Amino acid sequence: MAGASGYTGALAARLLQRHPHFDLVAVTSRSDVGRRLDDLYPYHRVPLTLEELDLDRHGKVDAAIVAYPHGAAAPLVAGLRERGVKVVDLSADFRIRDVAEYERWYVAHPHPELVEDAVYGLPERYRDAVRDAELVANPGCYPTATVLALAPLAPHLRDVVVDAKSGVSGAGRKATDTTHFVSADENVTPYGVGRHRHMPEIDQELHAAGAPGELHVTFTPHLVPLDQGELVSCYATLREPMSAGELTALYADAYAHEPFIELVDRVPGVRDVRDTNVCRIAVRLDERTGKAFVFAAIDNLWKGSSSQAVQNLNLMFGLDETLGIEP
Amino acid sequence: MAGASGYTGALAARLLQRHPHFDLVAVTSRSDVGRRLDDLYPYHRVPLTLEELDLDRHGKVDAAIVAYPHGAAAPLVAGLRERGVKVVDLSADFRIRDVAEYERWYVAHPHPELVEDAVYGLPERYRDAVRDAELVANPGCYPTATVLALAPLAPHLRDVVVDAKSGVSGAGRKATDTTHFVSADENVTPYGVGRHRHMPEIDQELHAAGAPGELHVTFTPHLVPLDQGELVSCYATLREPMSAGELTALYADAYAHEPFIELVDRVPGVRDVRDTNVCRIAVRLDERTGKAFVFAAIDNLWKGSSSQAVQNLNLMFGLDETLGIEP
Amino acid sequence: MAGASGYTGALAARLLQRHPHFDLVAVTSRSDVGRRLDDLYPYHRVPLTLEELDLDRHGKVDAAIVAYPHGAAAPLVAGLRERGVKVVDLSADFRIRDVAEYERWYVAHPHPELVEDAVYGLPERYRDAVRDAELVANPGCYPTATVLALAPLAPHLRDVVVDAKSGVSGAGRKATDTTHFVSADENVTPYGVGRHRHMPEIDQELHAAGAPGELHVTFTPHLVPLDQGELVSCYATLREPMSAGELTALYADAYAHEPFIELVDRVPGVRDVRDTNVCRIAVRLDERTGKAFVFAAIDNLWKGSSSQAVQNLNLMFGLDETLGIEP
Amino acid sequence: MAGASGYTGALAARLLQRHPHFDLVAVTSRSDVGRRLDDLYPYHRVPLTLEELDLDRHGKVDAAIVAYPHGAAAPLVAGLRERGVKVVDLSADFRIRDVAEYERWYVAHPHPELVEDAVYGLPERYRDAVRDAELVANPGCYPTATVLALAPLAPHLRDVVVDAKSGVSGAGRKATDTTHFVSADENVTPYGVGRHRHMPEIDQELHAAGAPGELHVTFTPHLVPLDQGELVSCYATLREPMSAGELTALYADAYAHEPFIELVDRVPGVRDVRDTNVCRIAVRLDERTGKAFVFAAIDNLWKGSSSQAVQNLNLMFGLDETLGIEP
Repeated sequence: MAGASGYTGALAARLLQRHPHFDLVAVTSRSDVGRRLDDLYPYHRVPLTLEELDLDRHGKVDAAIVAYPHGAAAPLVAGLRERGVKVVDLSADFRIRDVAEYERWYVAHPHPELVEDAVYGLPERYRDAVRDAELVANPGCYPTATVLALAPLAPHLRDVVVDAKSGVSGAGRKATDTTHFVSADENVTPYGVGRHRHMPEIDQELHAAGAPGELHVTFTPHLVPLDQGELVSCYATLREPMSAGELTALYADAYAHEPFIELVDRVPGVRDVRDTNVCRIAVRLDERTGKAFVFAAIDNLWKGSSSQAVQNLNLMFGLDETLGIEP
Repeated sequence: MAGASGYTGALAARLLQRHPHFDLVAVTSRSDVGRRLDDLYPYHRVPLTLEELDLDRHGKVDAAIVAYPHGAAAPLVAGLRERGVKVVDLSADFRIRDVAEYERWYVAHPHPELVEDAVYGLPERYRDAVRDAELVANPGCYPTATVLALAPLAPHLRDVVVDAKSGVSGAGRKATDTTHFVSADENVTPYGVGRHRHMPEIDQELHAAGAPGELHVTFTPHLVPLDQGELVSCYATLREPMSAGELTALYADAYAHEPFIELVDRVPGVRDVRDTNVCRIAVRLDERTGKAFVFAAIDNLWKGSSSQAVQNLNLMFGLDETLGIEP
Repeated sequence: MAGASGYTGALAARLLQRHPHFDLVAVTSRSDVGRRLDDLYPYHRVPLTLEELDLDRHGKVDAAIVAYPHGAAAPLVAGLRERGVKVVDLSADFRIRDVAEYERWYVAHPHPELVEDAVYGLPERYRDAVRDAELVANPGCYPTATVLALAPLAPHLRDVVVDAKSGVSGAGRKATDTTHFVSADENVTPYGVGRHRHMPEIDQELHAAGAPGELHVTFTPHLVPLDQGELVSCYATLREPMSAGELTALYADAYAHEPFIELVDRVPGVRDVRDTNVCRIAVRLDERTGKAFVFAAIDNLWKGSSSQAVQNLNLMFGLDETLGIEP
Repeated sequence: MAGASGYTGALAARLLQRHPHFDLVAVTSRSDVGRRLDDLYPYHRVPLTLEELDLDRHGKVDAAIVAYPHGAAAPLVAGLRERGVKVVDLSADFRIRDVAEYERWYVAHPHPELVEDAVYGLPERYRDAVRDAELVANPGCYPTATVLALAPLAPHLRDVVVDAKSGVSGAGRKATDTTHFVSADENVTPYGVGRHRHMPEIDQELHAAGAPGELHVTFTPHLVPLDQGELVSCYATLREPMSAGELTALYADAYAHEPFIELVDRVPGVRDVRDTNVCRIAVRLDERTGKAFVFAAIDNLWKGSSSQAVQNLNLMFGLDETLGIEP
């Protein structure tokens, strides 16, 4: 577990530490070497000391989850791959297939040659490819919720507005004016309006799911005063009218056998999926406007990041997908 | 002040009690007669005892704010109007011009004959009419924010999605499963999906502002874990392309002289307007999609209800509109 | 699981449903018969329907957890005991050894004859007795935290002030003015001052742990704006001076082998023990005053109620105490 | 207003800006020069730009409120005093009469010669001296609440435990691990145990109010998840028994004519005093133990700092004490 001192890295460490199949052999950190992880995050109860990363030593494991910032992750991933280590990378570095597009939103790509080997780690979309992958690009939290919410409807989309709400842990562990309790408490704020980095990732995956090439998702995230949880509210204009029954059937078919997708009648709240790998989805056909509404709730730290990484690892090692992250 | 034991009634009582022009002569309640208002709401510091309403006695005032539930308000308003009392009604009873439409969403209208006398109390839209009115229908909180956000753009709208977020006080004082702390805390939930009663009110006012007749707003509110505050995020598809400059100018013109509208560059958070009659608005032209984004924040109990009632009262009595509710 | 529609009953149902040894055969409710438990509490994911209690049918199980209000629990417990069912009772009905004292604080006792058979279910104090018990009185949340915090020090106490803080779930599922989000949010309030029902239970157990007979704990709980979690801050005047080393050694000895007690140097926060059966304790000798300070954090719904009930059940059936509730 | 970019400085600026007597001529900052104060704190609506402090220019005012960190405040206060400016200092630099004691808890005192000129700015205790003062040391938030809670009882105290709870704004504007939303949310934590800097200030003032010389207050603050608000719960062992009536009378007499003290029967919550200069106090005689309980609630940013500074300024200029901060 490389980069275990952030929120997602620490949670991944906890999940691995209790996993019935994997052994967590080391946790590394760039900022907190020498500190105990259970001192930093008592509630995760991982009794290990954060180490400085040493590829010679840490490169001997079978698999690694990497939780580094974008740009910083790719070189480490490259080093691990050279040593034959299977990697789930939580950063954005290998999510965007089009390197130019990646560089438009992020930085110059340190290892573009690895991009085509990477599999986008949304098992509900790429399960078979993940099974065979040696490098998995774990999706962003917003793309996870949005793509799961919209993929079944993708070929029918003419236009779609996605309004997302996320708890403050989504902003990371760094103490900033934005994450200060007094700023976030009793507040709701849009952010990244028109320029959030998860937008190209969402577009890419909706196009892969059959959305027309000219579709550009309108996506706006909001910060809400809670620690964990993410809701995406999707308002879709359809290419052709659809009945409520057809809409429901579309989702029922798509997600009939998914262990972590819950299709529900009652609209979901993020509390329903707290501390789970579950994505809970409700769909509605709005008779006044003919639009399809889709609401999807996940825990941004779990299905939106760390438990999805474990779901991917399970698949990469031929295990039951739900091992260690049972709903 | 009739119906002072609910959140909006109690706040209106507080604002009147400190008002430099009006004298608050009585506060009435249907559920808490005999209790002191400052026992029920210590923070409002209104040292009056809640009385049972008695039209013979209470009908002798110059003006009344009525904070009764829809359906129950109309008969009281009728009684007050018969006695010549000017009324600002916080309920929905006189907001919808089309009685049949009112009855589709609410109840059989107890006094349809009064509807045409009522002025919709959004001063930024109907200032002159409010000045002359004897009965003002105070807007709902969502319509207040949404109509202020979209009115300048109404003639240009082809389609618009409004995603709203409101604090729990919007659900009223009644203790329910929904308003229980444990339900609302660490949660975000959509509600009233496709059938919220503020929808016809929003449509009516956008049409009055020039929106094409076939426009039906897509409106979905969400409950977020805070006490006061409301944000509406509007995603508008325009009838014809518009530049960022044109969009900005449209709003700058519309709201140039409004004392309670703040046009800002930085997207607003609800904390920015807490405990004020201010509506804070930011507009953006999204270059990827050509859509116009409008974000508007209000305090649902203040501009969304009680302080707007005082703004209306000020106008009805020829006073400076900002008296007692200065930003 | 009898009474599964309240917070503690529902959590106990969840823990039993995932327990490696026990089978959860039925969940009953007095208020929500016919509803699915996972509809009422999606996050517990217990796919069972709440039934009306029927002793003829439900009395055939090996064990039951009863989560009824005090007074109502005793008759059900009596019925279950007659049929040979082992019972962990979450109510106060069998916690107080002195029936007259129970009746002073609660109601006329419906089954005083069962009191002497009941074992007080604080395993850290009565582990062996719990192993042999057929009826366990599960402790209250405040007594759990307070007695664990003070038992090692009991013989040394001259006087002690306990200031407790609890999340709103401690007030139960019932929607009241107190549990309304708007009342609890941005607030801190003392309650039950000088007359909280957990006081005689705390005194009883501290006396049992060796506190002098004349000791009366000063105990005041406060409601704080969070869902789960409880902190007790104890300020103890000692009978004779003690060094910091002696104080630390006292606790280290007392809790050396306890799987659910964490003695820590850094003062605990309730977040550290969220969703666990852990009680986290820090002790300090205050040099200015010679007082001993003890801070103990638990999750009021877990160690303060439902997971402690499972801990007790594990012991009553000769199982590893931590089964299904591993920290 | 010097140091207007922190929470207390910004609030003081807002109060002065709306004050009927004072003109706010400038706001200065060490960290945010050039930024508009209403950009930094939109909700305060102070349309001024933060300037670099320049004594030649800013030293020409009649009065200044200084909101600098301890140690940094004293030199600025000295400079202002040299120019004849009346000062209310929000820091700790002039609160402690005994310079050696100050230096034990803080730093080497930069201007010990000014200490004896300073008046401790708790008007309820030192009103006449404040009227004549040219330098007022504004009390800390915890001392304000605690001294107001205990002063009437001081001569009767044998021992007292004070357990305090404060919102996160008390920790200041600086973004730290402690003030991160994810750390503070759903948490309650003691801090500064046995070594909080407000302890000597509390002791000093209780001794001044007649507490026996050997009394050392036991004082422990806790961080609770809210933005503004502070509750002190005081548990006092009395030197001689007192009846409930005597206790009540003691407080009624002491605070009979205080405009900002509210003596109440029902225990106060911090929400009752939010955004006011009020200290709300309830007293109880505990019959089981003979102890006196006193609960006092303030808004830590208002009565605990900035509005109390305005109360002091009002007195220093011979104005009505409540001007601009009416309850």
